[in-house]
Parts: sequence; structure tokens; C-alpha cells
Amino acid sequence: MTVKCDLELKPQDVTSPRWKEECGVAGVWAPGRSVVDLCYLGLFALQHRGQESAGLAVTDGLHIDMERGMGLMREAFRHRLPSLKGHAAIGHVRYSTCGASLFNNIQPIFAYFSGGFICLAHNGSLTNAPSLRRRLEKDGCVFQTGTDTEAILNLIARDGAQTTEEKIAASLQQIEGAYSLTIMTGDRLIGVRDPYGFRPLCLGSLPGGGYVLASESCALDAAGAEFIRDVAPGEMLIIDRDGLHSRIIGARPRLARCVFEYIYFARPDSVLDGLSVWQARYRLGQQLAREFTGAADMVTPVPDTGITAALGFAAESGLPYVEGLIKNRYVGRTFILPDQAERQSTVEMKLNPIRANLKDKRVVLVDDSLVRGTTSASLISLIRRAGAGEVHFCISSPPITHPCYYGIDTAVRKELIASHKTVDEIRRIISADGLQYLSRPGLMGAVGDPEEKLMCGACFSGEYPTSVKDVENKECK
Amino acid sequence: MTVKCDLELKPQDVTSPRWKEECGVAGVWAPGRSVVDLCYLGLFALQHRGQESAGLAVTDGLHIDMERGMGLMREAFRHRLPSLKGHAAIGHVRYSTCGASLFNNIQPIFAYFSGGFICLAHNGSLTNAPSLRRRLEKDGCVFQTGTDTEAILNLIARDGAQTTEEKIAASLQQIEGAYSLTIMTGDRLIGVRDPYGFRPLCLGSLPGGGYVLASESCALDAAGAEFIRDVAPGEMLIIDRDGLHSRIIGARPRLARCVFEYIYFARPDSVLDGLSVWQARYRLGQQLAREFTGAADMVTPVPDTGITAALGFAAESGLPYVEGLIKNRYVGRTFILPDQAERQSTVEMKLNPIRANLKDKRVVLVDDSLVRGTTSASLISLIRRAGAGEVHFCISSPPITHPCYYGIDTAVRKELIASHKTVDEIRRIISADGLQYLSRPGLMGAVGDPEEKLMCGACFSGEYPTSVKDVENKECK
Amino acid sequence: MTVKCDLELKPQDVTSPRWKEECGVAGVWAPGRSVVDLCYLGLFALQHRGQESAGLAVTDGLHIDMERGMGLMREAFRHRLPSLKGHAAIGHVRYSTCGASLFNNIQPIFAYFSGGFICLAHNGSLTNAPSLRRRLEKDGCVFQTGTDTEAILNLIARDGAQTTEEKIAASLQQIEGAYSLTIMTGDRLIGVRDPYGFRPLCLGSLPGGGYVLASESCALDAAGAEFIRDVAPGEMLIIDRDGLHSRIIGARPRLARCVFEYIYFARPDSVLDGLSVWQARYRLGQQLAREFTGAADMVTPVPDTGITAALGFAAESGLPYVEGLIKNRYVGRTFILPDQAERQSTVEMKLNPIRANLKDKRVVLVDDSLVRGTTSASLISLIRRAGAGEVHFCISSPPITHPCYYGIDTAVRKELIASHKTVDEIRRIISADGLQYLSRPGLMGAVGDPEEKLMCGACFSGEYPTSVKDVENKECK
Amino acid sequence: MTVKCDLELKPQDVTSPRWKEECGVAGVWAPGRSVVDLCYLGLFALQHRGQESAGLAVTDGLHIDMERGMGLMREAFRHRLPSLKGHAAIGHVRYSTCGASLFNNIQPIFAYFSGGFICLAHNGSLTNAPSLRRRLEKDGCVFQTGTDTEAILNLIARDGAQTTEEKIAASLQQIEGAYSLTIMTGDRLIGVRDPYGFRPLCLGSLPGGGYVLASESCALDAAGAEFIRDVAPGEMLIIDRDGLHSRIIGARPRLARCVFEYIYFARPDSVLDGLSVWQARYRLGQQLAREFTGAADMVTPVPDTGITAALGFAAESGLPYVEGLIKNRYVGRTFILPDQAERQSTVEMKLNPIRANLKDKRVVLVDDSLVRGTTSASLISLIRRAGAGEVHFCISSPPITHPCYYGIDTAVRKELIASHKTVDEIRRIISADGLQYLSRPGLMGAVGDPEEKLMCGACFSGEYPTSVKDVENKECK
Repeated sequence: MTVKCDLELKPQDVTSPRWKEECGVAGVWAPGRSVVDLCYLGLFALQHRGQESAGLAVTDGLHIDMERGMGLMREAFRHRLPSLKGHAAIGHVRYSTCGASLFNNIQPIFAYFSGGFICLAHNGSLTNAPSLRRRLEKDGCVFQTGTDTEAILNLIARDGAQTTEEKIAASLQQIEGAYSLTIMTGDRLIGVRDPYGFRPLCLGSLPGGGYVLASESCALDAAGAEFIRDVAPGEMLIIDRDGLHSRIIGARPRLARCVFEYIYFARPDSVLDGLSVWQARYRLGQQLAREFTGAADMVTPVPDTGITAALGFAAESGLPYVEGLIKNRYVGRTFILPDQAERQSTVEMKLNPIRANLKDKRVVLVDDSLVRGTTSASLISLIRRAGAGEVHFCISSPPITHPCYYGIDTAVRKELIASHKTVDEIRRIISADGLQYLSRPGLMGAVGDPEEKLMCGACFSGEYPTSVKDVENKECK
Repeated sequence: MTVKCDLELKPQDVTSPRWKEECGVAGVWAPGRSVVDLCYLGLFALQHRGQESAGLAVTDGLHIDMERGMGLMREAFRHRLPSLKGHAAIGHVRYSTCGASLFNNIQPIFAYFSGGFICLAHNGSLTNAPSLRRRLEKDGCVFQTGTDTEAILNLIARDGAQTTEEKIAASLQQIEGAYSLTIMTGDRLIGVRDPYGFRPLCLGSLPGGGYVLASESCALDAAGAEFIRDVAPGEMLIIDRDGLHSRIIGARPRLARCVFEYIYFARPDSVLDGLSVWQARYRLGQQLAREFTGAADMVTPVPDTGITAALGFAAESGLPYVEGLIKNRYVGRTFILPDQAERQSTVEMKLNPIRANLKDKRVVLVDDSLVRGTTSASLISLIRRAGAGEVHFCISSPPITHPCYYGIDTAVRKELIASHKTVDEIRRIISADGLQYLSRPGLMGAVGDPEEKLMCGACFSGEYPTSVKDVENKECK
Repeated sequence: MTVKCDLELKPQDVTSPRWKEECGVAGVWAPGRSVVDLCYLGLFALQHRGQESAGLAVTDGLHIDMERGMGLMREAFRHRLPSLKGHAAIGHVRYSTCGASLFNNIQPIFAYFSGGFICLAHNGSLTNAPSLRRRLEKDGCVFQTGTDTEAILNLIARDGAQTTEEKIAASLQQIEGAYSLTIMTGDRLIGVRDPYGFRPLCLGSLPGGGYVLASESCALDAAGAEFIRDVAPGEMLIIDRDGLHSRIIGARPRLARCVFEYIYFARPDSVLDGLSVWQARYRLGQQLAREFTGAADMVTPVPDTGITAALGFAAESGLPYVEGLIKNRYVGRTFILPDQAERQSTVEMKLNPIRANLKDKRVVLVDDSLVRGTTSASLISLIRRAGAGEVHFCISSPPITHPCYYGIDTAVRKELIASHKTVDEIRRIISADGLQYLSRPGLMGAVGDPEEKLMCGACFSGEYPTSVKDVENKECK
Repeated sequence: MTVKCDLELKPQDVTSPRWKEECGVAGVWAPGRSVVDLCYLGLFALQHRGQESAGLAVTDGLHIDMERGMGLMREAFRHRLPSLKGHAAIGHVRYSTCGASLFNNIQPIFAYFSGGFICLAHNGSLTNAPSLRRRLEKDGCVFQTGTDTEAILNLIARDGAQTTEEKIAASLQQIEGAYSLTIMTGDRLIGVRDPYGFRPLCLGSLPGGGYVLASESCALDAAGAEFIRDVAPGEMLIIDRDGLHSRIIGARPRLARCVFEYIYFARPDSVLDGLSVWQARYRLGQQLAREFTGAADMVTPVPDTGITAALGFAAESGLPYVEGLIKNRYVGRTFILPDQAERQSTVEMKLNPIRANLKDKRVVLVDDSLVRGTTSASLISLIRRAGAGEVHFCISSPPITHPCYYGIDTAVRKELIASHKTVDEIRRIISADGLQYLSRPGLMGAVGDPEEKLMCGACFSGEYPTSVKDVENKECK
């Protein structure tokens, strides 16, 4: 069932990322301080993780003030930031996934219940959401949004445990899949990371006292917090007046940290679970160079996503790193394209070749991934028309053959070009002279998980670490 | 607990009505037609019943499309109207009452539940809302808004009956107080009026087939529907593919239709429960003239609310009806007053006297009611400074001594000037030469209920037709 | 040549007045005070004279700050009011007339010239604007807007006189037609009224010292100023540090004050050239009753424009005054009509009949004027469908047969129904049982100018007090 | 005199460039086509040259349609693009310079004059503007804006020549300084470049016929036009129904093309006067490496402006090129910084270091220029706190000691740190371990003008190629 609601329609986004990461979350706890600003700064550093809506909630223990809106943070908070001087806050940036961008879907999600109030921000996707929701509806629950996050709220409210903390702990037993959560009640800030560790979450400390939780370490830097450690997979970390304490939730069958955080999602200045994203990405480029079998004169990235891997490729291969495409920095989300101009490819609005650098060259063009192939074809055509002799398209990840059910809105399977085409077929479709994917062992070696015991690479293999029966054939409802 | 959320702050409303009627509701059912436009037109005729937010939901049985926003309808639907071509729709305009203008409080309220989806618009106020909510929270319900309407949704979802219709009927047994509802499900449009009949609700038929439900008959006119009848107090009126059928809900201890609908709230071109609002209001003026004991040269209204009663007063008394105050039609809700100009009374921004008409005259100034007395004092001063010899302030209703718990946001009791001051004290406070209220028997006789068996006049008497223990001392939370 | 520029397009105005008065002007001079607020309040009382754009300019003698924008004042000054603390200010509200609503056309118009700066607001229309403009262009002037007001600026800047005051006086010799001006320079506020006195302009004094100039006396009330006198036709009134002094400009062939100011344009609470607008309008209704030859049961106005005349009609005829049509106060300029709803007549969006008051009655329906006849036909049909037995349409002005060239944007002649149809033909076109215009002697008698020596009634007679050759056949360019 | 007008105030721009290039201009002529879209696309590629306002005007020879607004193009054209289907268009993006951002200052500037209409877009700054304006005002001209461009309009309108083309040619004789113009009349598109060639302007041809004029070649690419040639310094290029023809205006004392276009302003994918901006910038980095006397472990750029020079530096020096700072791409012009967060340096909002890459390294940090030194100090501090051992700040241009009067809004002289501090003093102020400017011979050699006969380097030397007496001490008025 389609639900459209409250949505201010936006013009087509010409810079839409090929992948849609669902969310970034943040939380700040600092008794004696007003923390809206710190939460804002932290969240702002996570803007790359979600650009369709944003929200911030703050409490002083007694009152709660919340502001949520569509669009980038600067749009969502155009009218006001929460003005309450409170010592605890959580925030969220998101892409909508299934269902339309219902205004009500914007997080943090908030409710009154018998235990007071609760506010929750969620990065990830529950693989048992449909059956959970059916069960809750059967028990008389109403759902006012389309998010699976609302199910978590209802589980907590219905749990028979004595305290809110116990209710939360008990509810987490019933949800499956990917979830990094920040939760705020009247007297606690709680961070949770699912037992597989699909999505990142880390903890930092503030100079004057207090803590920050965030999806990536770059948000700690932005909030002026010092990195303490990653929240452990399967950990529920409670911050209250007495300080930090943690509980272990659920068994840990294996770890399954998303490898695409390193390939594409996370910011290069973040360190996730001990590994620098920049360095991981550079090594992917180095490894790609080792695997590359063609001959070329220069290496050039697709800006901005291919830059770090291209630097690694150039260093390893000895080929010169040259800028070949210049990005128009003003092509934004809210860019209004005149109707008549839609003939013009949006790729050409965004990127312009430097002819002098490409003329008659055999070019290695480096990008991080290849999903549908349409953008790649436009890119290669652009470079070829600028005079390049040959174009070798090099991808710093393996072919994506399966959809993700852990919080990434990939295409459905049939839209994944590598799910039904061979590498050579793809090469011909995108009209490249060469097409080089990074091998799966090459990838896993570069990120330090050669046996694939720590990372999830299900999108390359179809070997999902959890059951996905409940969501496998879901259509957007 | 204060909750602020999503609220675009508005400058102070200089034309805020002295009373805040909570809501107007509408609903349209017309298989084979697209009804958003009809629902919009009907709702638009009810704009006087609520100016803080508006919402419209439409369904084609399978999909639902909703748009809700803050402000007047022209602001709330600035970006879009629901675009779905559907055969059923409901709409709502409201004032916020207790709690802040949470964006989520805007109605219609919507939810998925085990029976599909349900959409609900509510005019009135439940007198057992606090205990209902406590009970539901205890049973594990979460509340995402501050409205009592959300409790109705939860009751319906939790009811064990087989069909949605039965669930609704059973839930209505558990709510008390004032409620006129329009409810939309995938296959039904339902209108409900509480057994006391506090708030109006009427039914009309569309020329090409189909039905319209609305708070007032003027909305039927606007939607091009012909008036059939009022929904009976205690009636649940179901409209589906088979046509109309009705069920009786609850016992009917007595009727208690709000007499203030005739005095002030409803539009003069509406007919409520068989009585023309214009004629009722004119008769109030006639009766007021009969009760008036002073001597005067002319009658003039406070525009616009006192006009009809002033005409009745003039006709009965034989005094000439003369315009004495001219209203600036451009003083609107969103009027931006320059800071410096706030010294200037807002009454003077809005109204300007016609000196030539008032000079040396003994003026009867007619208004519909007197709540706090502050505006009245400004008005009288304005007329006096324009040269009037005497000002006799005549009110076409009795002194208001008690708050309303049935959907009107009156002041709390201590702010009601007549709750603790005598008529003569009030006269002196507002500096009138004379102050004449309409007597309670005079009022009730004029609206055809001399024994007070059909109407609710609790705000004049404190004799509430239902228990109000649950809400009596509520503070805005 | 069409010029469109900077115009935020607005949805069709469903409450567009039948006449478009071009402008209202205001000016405040009060050394030692900050006058933006007073100018704002005064201008706000003139909002009925122009709703398409508004502007305010303020100076402290050294600096100037200006804000202008499209729409009502609340829209035009949405972002800011001029913030300069200055002792002199002028303001303007306008309808656009010929040419599109060029942003640059919004007044006050501003320029630097050899004498410093000058700021000018204009109500009226120059009958020699086309030839003036051609001459100035030939002399090398550029015109950045489409207004005739820009020509006045250029005349002033090019004049050879020593002082700015002399330059202005000399320039006024060269312009013809209708003009009431407020002019602000670094050290003067100047008010000018053309020798014919087409448009009103009056002077008031502020309690603490200082002066206010305004199109109507209601603006003096709003600004807290006391009325001193009307600016005389042909007077140039200079206000500076030394106080008031006045100069006479041009010969005074005859007076030609616009009689339509009394019939329709001005606010009823204004007094223009010694005559109360309300009383004039009431007398028009009385005279209309005397001329009325039909038989009827009641009198009802077209709200709001027909109310005062209807009261006069009722008083004179002895027929009861009854409200028959209720206006939806929320139909505003920026009303967004859903596309589908355009089938619905806008008259019916705006007005709803009170059936009980009209049923089987012979109704006298009073309005101020009849221009094209289309709205009138809708009104009469609405009343007839509400059950009226007969509808006698009574107009408190004579038939309009000729366009106005003095600042009113009437239709072109062929659109004026009375220019080519007899009264009886019009009656049949609008389907009225009777149609009664006020006679021209009746009108002129009622406003105290039985010999038509003081007022302009060219729109009824075609006897233009000035040459109109230059503008007679102008097409909007 | 301060004039504020129509300005929607914007929050402080945290990404304000250190230099403010005044403008970019574009023009399209293509009979038989509707060219708004092409002009939009071309202009959009020039957005980096001006972000405070934008405008587009289009004509079909008979009508003209224009849209101008504040902000980025996406903001300025938020409401509408000119909708006229016309065969000729010009566009403009600008920074405001002297005077406030008067709405009326937004270009293109438009006027009616005796020869019809004229529309003009200007990149550059006239060095005789003050005396020109004084002379014109003395002759009776009015100025409605604060731009020097309005003087050009007035010169044209007042010229006695027979045709508009002759009038333009004659007017150009009277203006001095920097100007690249696109001019549109009813039947011509004209491009003009001043005799010194201060600002770039180039010509391209459209595949289906027609021409494009633009400040940089990247705009030709964006509009789908093929580069033909640069407009010659001192050339007036007329495009009409008969095709292209050109006239020579003024004597050519020497060439003085702005060298900063290569260092910073122009987009790297543009080719200006035969020299690729990317290659020039790369060579500056190479030359800087040759001049560098320190010892280091790695090279890292200040993103984005230092990237290309850093690549050249790395290649020449043999040091590895490593990303050390990551830019938050969402810090935009309209970024709303919560008040509380302003404590946080805006540099830290925008840039975050990659600690792992900088730790204990001797870092060469490359940027294009150093104006005031404040941002540089923050950058160096940021890198040092990330663990760098030494920071050697290398600037790919010489010290800026003199203001620019040719269209760049540099600081006034006393704000230029290099005008009164030695290199070593600056090094200490910004707390760098080393500070290396590019030498002036090194710069001029790298751009192929070792004798400084083609380029203007007045900001490094104070040797202005024209008289600047008229503007030298101008204060913003």
C-alpha cells in the first residue's frame, strides 16, 4: 500500500548516490551542559550517511524538545533547532528506503509509554520486521509510520519488565538483523549494536566530562570528543548519572561487519573497528593495481568516490595519477534542472573532462563500485569523447550480485547488472576497453579478513549471515 | 511535560478569537468519483472552526494519500493536495488545545493495524481521556502524539471483535465526553456523534450519488451537497458500497448540544439540528433588547461577531443600526507587527471608529460574549475617544463562569472574569456606562430550549451533563 | 513589449476587486524619532488601496534603507522591515496596472542624482506619460521600469534649477493628469496633489511633534496622528526642519476629485475633503431607495462593498435590512484552489446564502457598482437558487460607460457592459427581476456636487476634465 | 551612503572564498531555437565565479523575459526560469563588491532607451567609474543601483550615434579598466573584452548553428558548444542574423590578463587564451617544488584549491601525494550554524584530518594563495594537532601586497598580510615550520610570460597597468 504524506516534493536528484545508506546516528550525554550544539556538530559530520531527512531530540530529564524535517540538515533545521537546554540529545540522518518519505518516518522516533518517554534513532534494517509487525498488529498495536523502528518502540512498551532498561534489553532479544541504535529516556542515553556488528557505532569522551555516541569516528572529531572505543557487537551500553555500564545482548554467532562501509559508505577520515577507512580504500586501490592485467598511461579517478583507491592504484602501478574529470561542486540535491535541459545528461552537468590530460591516453578510470552500469557508460563515453585512446574501467570491489537486507537500499536483484551478466558482457554494455573488478579474496585480504569471518560480503556472494526469508521478496509496500 | 516539535513558530496572532473551537470535520464518499476537491471545498467552509492546522486524507480503497500541515488550509496545503484519485476522503481543521502544536497532532490521525488502515478526524474532547490513556499505556500502548484521539485508535486496534466496524462500535462504548468523528477505512466512511450531541454533525447527498458528512451545513452547501439530516446524537452512521446504515451507540441520558455553537462558533449560514444559526443569533439580539434597561441613541456591533445580534437588537428596540467601527480586513493570522509598533494596541490595528457616527451619541455596543474583559475595555475606550457620549456594552449571552470540557478551549476558570466578579464590577473594569448580559432564561428561550433539556449551558451554570472529574483540574501537560 | 521580471507567480485571485485602485501613499516626518513603525501603521490602513506590492523607505538624512516586495504588506515585509532608525519615511502600496508586475515597478522608486538621493511614491496616472517618456528617451534617458513615475525622477534630475525643491517644482509643471505624491530627500518630506485633486491626500500632526501625509484620513488614525487638513489641489507641501510651507503649482482650471473614492475605493472610516465616506455611501443608498420603483420585502447587501448603501436604502425605504449572503473570510489573495475545484464558481467559494432569510422573498440586493456583469449574474443566480421570489439588483452608482485615465485600472471600454448595452439588456443578461442604477444627478447631489464642478464623473459621462489623447488608445505595452 | 534594499539576509557564509571574483558572463545566439536552457547550462558551469546572485534574460527580438535573484542559481531561479522561447539570451553570476547586495544590483542590467531595449552583463571593474558617474549625474542622469555597469547603459543611451551598435562602440571609448561584457539588444548579441584583456571571454559554436559567449571554456562544454577562439583583447564581437563580425575598440598599450585566473579563479577544466588552467596550476606546483628548500615526507593539499598544485609538487619532488584533510561536502553557503556552535572554528566544521596519514610526518601542505593568514593558521593548527611532526606551508603564488582594481574584491591593503609583514613574520604568525611562496619569476615562467608582458601581476608588484587614481582610495560607499 502506497502512503504518501506530508512530503514536499523535490526535483530529481542528479547527484543521487548509487547506494543509499539508510542512516547515521549520534547521541550526547553531558550533565551540566547544554548539548544540542554538540549533537548537531556530530550529526553534521554524518550527513553523508543520509540526506533525505534529519532530526534532533534533546531532554533535560523532565522536558523533551524535538525538531525533525525533510532534506539536508540545513533544510530540516531551517526554521529552528531544538531550543531546550538539555544535557542529553540524540540525532539521526536518513535515507528513506521502502515506502515513501512519510514525514512521520523521520527519526528520531518518539513515544510516551507507561515508563515515561522514549526517543530512538536506528541505523540498520530488521530482517524479522514483517513478522514482528504482523504479530504486534495482531496483539492490537497501531503503526503510525512505515518504519521497522516503530516495532522496537512497541516491543519496549509492551514488555513486562520492571524498568525501562530491562524492557529495552528484553525487546532486543526479539529483533533480528542489523541495528545500531541510540536511545534516550528521561535519565539515560543508551547505545546498542547488534551481535553481528553490521553497522558501526563508536564511543567518545568529552573534555569536560560526558560521552558521545556516533556511527563513525569522524563525528567524534566534529563534536570535539576523544575516541574511546567501538561499541562491541552485541553490546548495550548504558550511560547515566553513574557513568558507563554495559550489558551483553544475544549470542554472537559470528561477526558480519559491512565491508562496504570501507569501500564506499564511511568517510575516509573515520576509523571503524580499528581500521582507517582511508587506508583500507588506498589498499583496495593497490590490490586492484596488482590484479590489473591491462596496459595504460595514466590513472584517473571518478571524483570523489574513486580518488583514494586511484591514488593507491597509481602508487602501486607506478602510473601517473592525473585529474581527468572536474566536478561541478554546485550540483546539489535541490538542483533545479530546466525542463528543456534534461536532454543533457546529468553526468555531463556534474562532470567535465580535462581534454589536455586525456588526449590519446590509455586511461585507467577508477571507481568504487558498479551497480546498474548506466552511470558508468556515460562516464566512459565522456572520457572517450574527450580524446582518450583507451578506457580501462577499474572497480575497487567485486561484482555485486545480491541485494543487501542490512540497511542498504541496493537495487532489487534484477537491477544489479552483475547478477545476470558476465564481466565481459558488462564491459561491452558500458563500452569500456577493459573492465577490472577487484577479486573477492583481494578485497577481503586488503581489509584484513581473508577468511571472511569478521565482515559481511553477502552482496558479493549471496551468503547472508542471518536468515532473510522474512524480507527476501518484500516489495515496497 | 512540554513537547515542542516540528513547529514553525508564528508571530503572535492579533486576531485570535476569544474562544478556541477545537475542530471541524468533513468526509466524502462517492464511488466512481475523485473526491479530494469536494472534501477540500467542504472543509474550507469550516475554516472558521480551526485555523492552526489542517489535513486531508483520501483513499481509493487500496492506497491512501494524506497531506497535513500547520496553519490555514492555504498554508497547510501550500505544497500539495493529496493527488490520489480516490472515492473517499476525510478532512480536519483544528486549533491545538492542551499541549503544544505538535506537528504530529495535526489530524486526520492515521494508523495501520491488524484490520488494515484507519483514518480518523475528531471534533470534541474526551472527558475520560487521562484515565483511558493511563490504562492503555499500562497495557503496553505507545502514544506518539498528545491528542486524546490517539486513544480511540488504540482502542479500535485492540478490540477483539471480528470486523473493523464492530471494533469501532465496541470502542465507542469506552469513550466519554464530546466527539463528532469522521472515520475512513479501506471500504467505509463512518460518521459518529456522541450520545449527548455536544458537537454538531450533519449528512448531505451529492447530486450524482454519494454522501458528505460535515460539522456544519454550510460545508454541504460548499461541496454542492443537499442537506439530508443531522446525524443523531448517539448514532454511528456507516456509508459503504451498499449505501447508508446506522447503529445506535450508548444510552442517551439527555441531550446536551452546545449552545455556544449558536452564540458564536457556527457560521450564520449554517442550520444546526433544525435551527438556523442566523435566526438564533438575531433572536438573541431581540431578546437582549427586551432585557436592556438603559436609554440609547443607536446600536452598533463589534464586527464581525456582534453584527447579527445587533441587527436583532436594533429591530426590536427601534433604535437605528449604525456602523461605528470599521475592521481592517488585512489583519490576518500571519500578520507581522513591527516590534516598535507593539505599543499600538492590536485592537486599534484592527478596528477604527467612524467619528461622525459616534459623536455625542449614547451607543449600544453589541458583542456575542465576554470572556476575560481585556479586549472589551479596549473597544469601549476606542469608542469613547471617538466622541461617544455613553457606551452601553450589551452581550448576547450570559456571564461565563465555568470552563468547557467538551471541546472548547476556554480559559481556565480564574481567567473567566465573570467567575469572580459581579456584573457591576466588570462594568467598572471595562469602563462602560452600562453592561447588559443576556439572561440565561432569555438565551434558552431564544434557542427554543426553555427547560435546558436539549442544550448544554454548563459554561454559564457549572452543571456539567457528564462527569468531569478526570479532566477538571488538568493542567496543560 | 512584454517584460516579465522577478515575479513570483501567484495563483489566480478569487477575490480580485472589480476595480483596481492603483495606489496608496504615506509619509512621516518626525525629527528625533524613529518613524518606520508609524509609516508602517499608516500604510497598513491603506492596504485596501493596493495589494500587489508594497514598499517602505526610511532615511536619517545621511543613510537610506528601503524594503519592497510583492503581495500584501505581510508578504512584502516578511523578511524584514527597513531597520534604519530614521526620522523620515515614505511608503506605498500598489496594484500594477499596465505592464506586468515587474519587481522593479514596486514603489517607492529610488535614485541617486546630482542633488543626492530622492525617493518617490505616486498615486495616480500621468496622462502625458507616453510623450514625456519619448521625449526623455530621445534626450538619452534610460528607463529601468515600466512606470510613469520613473519619468518624474528623470525630469527632476535633469532640471537646471539650483535646489532639489526647485527642481521638483519645475518638474511638476511638465506632468499632466492625476498625481498625489510623497517625496523624500535627505532633508525634506514633500507632499504633492495635482491641480485637479483627482486623488486624495491629507495631512496630520503627531502628538510629540512631526507630520504624517496619507492618501486617506484612516491612515492618520492608524498612525496616531491628528487630522489637520487635506492637501489642497495644486499644492506642494514641504516639510523640513523649519516646519511646514507650501507652494502652489500650476493653474487650477477646475476641480475633479474622483467620485468613486466615495462610492467604492476609500475606507468608510475616512473623511476625504471634508466629506465622511460612510455618510456619503449611506446617502447614496438613501437616494437609491428614493429612485427605486420596484416593490420588495427586504434589503440585503453584497458583502462587504454594498453594506453601507444597503443600510441607507433600508432606512429610507422602511424595508427590513437582512443578511442574505455570508462571506467566507478565509478566501484570500493567496488562496490555492485545487484544480479540480475550479468547476465550482469562485463566487460560491466566497459567498453562501442564508436560505431561511431569502426563501420566497422579494429581495433588493445592493451593490456599489456594476462593471462587466459576470459576477453580478453569479450573485443573482445564487440568491435565486436559495429560494428568493424576486431579485432586484440596485447599484449605488450610475452606469459606467467610459474608462478612467486617472489612476484606476478599469476595463477597456468594450468590456464595460454599460458602454454598449441598455439597462434593460443588462438586466436580462444578469437575469435580475429588476435592475436599478443610481442616477447621475442623484449621485452628484448625494455627494454635495450637484453641478459637477468639484468631482470627476468621467467614467459615467466621458467628459474627461483633461486631454487624454496621449493615453486614450494605449494598449498595455 | 549605505543603501540596503530588498536583501534577504543570509547567515554568515562559512565557506566564503578568500577571494571574491566579481562575475561570470554568458550569452547564446541561435536563431530558430529556444536558448534559455543552453544559457542556463553555460552559466551553471560558471557558478564558481559568483555565488551571491544570478540572472538570465532572453529575447525573441520582440519581447524580453528576465529573472534575477539572490544566491546560487538554484536559489535565484527557484521560482521560475524565464519562460520566453527566444533565440538570444545572456546570463550573469556575481559577487557583490562595493555597496551592499542591493537587489537591483543583480545583473543582467536592463533598460529601455530611444533605441529600444538593451540588456548587459559585466565581469570586471571600471577604474574611471567614480568620475564617469559624477559626470553623468551632472548631466541629469539618475542611478537606481550602485553598480558601475549602470554608467555604461547611460553612456550608450546618451550617445549621439545613429545605431545602437555605434552607440555601444562609442561608449566603450569612454570607459577604462576591466570589462568583459555580453550585451543583448533586440537583434544582436555582442561580446566585448577590454583592450588589456583583464578578464577572459571566449566564443564557441553550437552544433546546429549559433554561437555561445562565456567567461570560460568550461561553459562552452556545458552548453554543448565547440570552442572556436578567445575573444581578443580590445575586440567587440557582434553576432546577428548575418553571422559574426568584429570591431576593434581602443588602443592596446599592452596586455594584462589576470594571472590569478590560472592560480585560483578559473575552473581547472577551462582553457584560457590557449593555456590549460589545470596544466598551469600543475606547473606552478612543479615550480614550487623546485623552489622548495625544506625536507619533508609527504605532500598534501588544502582541498579543493590546492589539489592540482600539490599533485605537481609531488610529481616534481618525488614525495608521496597523500590525502591529509577531508572536506565535509555539505558545508554550503546557506549552512545554518547553531549559535552555540560558533565557538567551534568553521575550519573544523569543514575539514577533518586523517590522523593515520599525518602522524609524525613532515608535511608539505599546499595551497594556492595566502591573503589574510587567519584561515592558514587554523589549518596548520589542525594538522599539527592530528600528530604531524612538521608543517611546511607551500603557496603556489607570490606574496599578495596590493589590492586589485580590476574586478576582484581583495581585501583593502592593510588587510593583506604580506603588505606589511615579512615572510618569516608571517610564518611565525601562522605557526608553520616552514613557509614557501612561489617566486614571481617562477610564477610568470610557469604561465609562459617570463617578461610579464601579457599578464597582470599588479597584486604582487603594485605595478598597475592602468591609472587607478580614481578608485585607489575608494571606500565602500
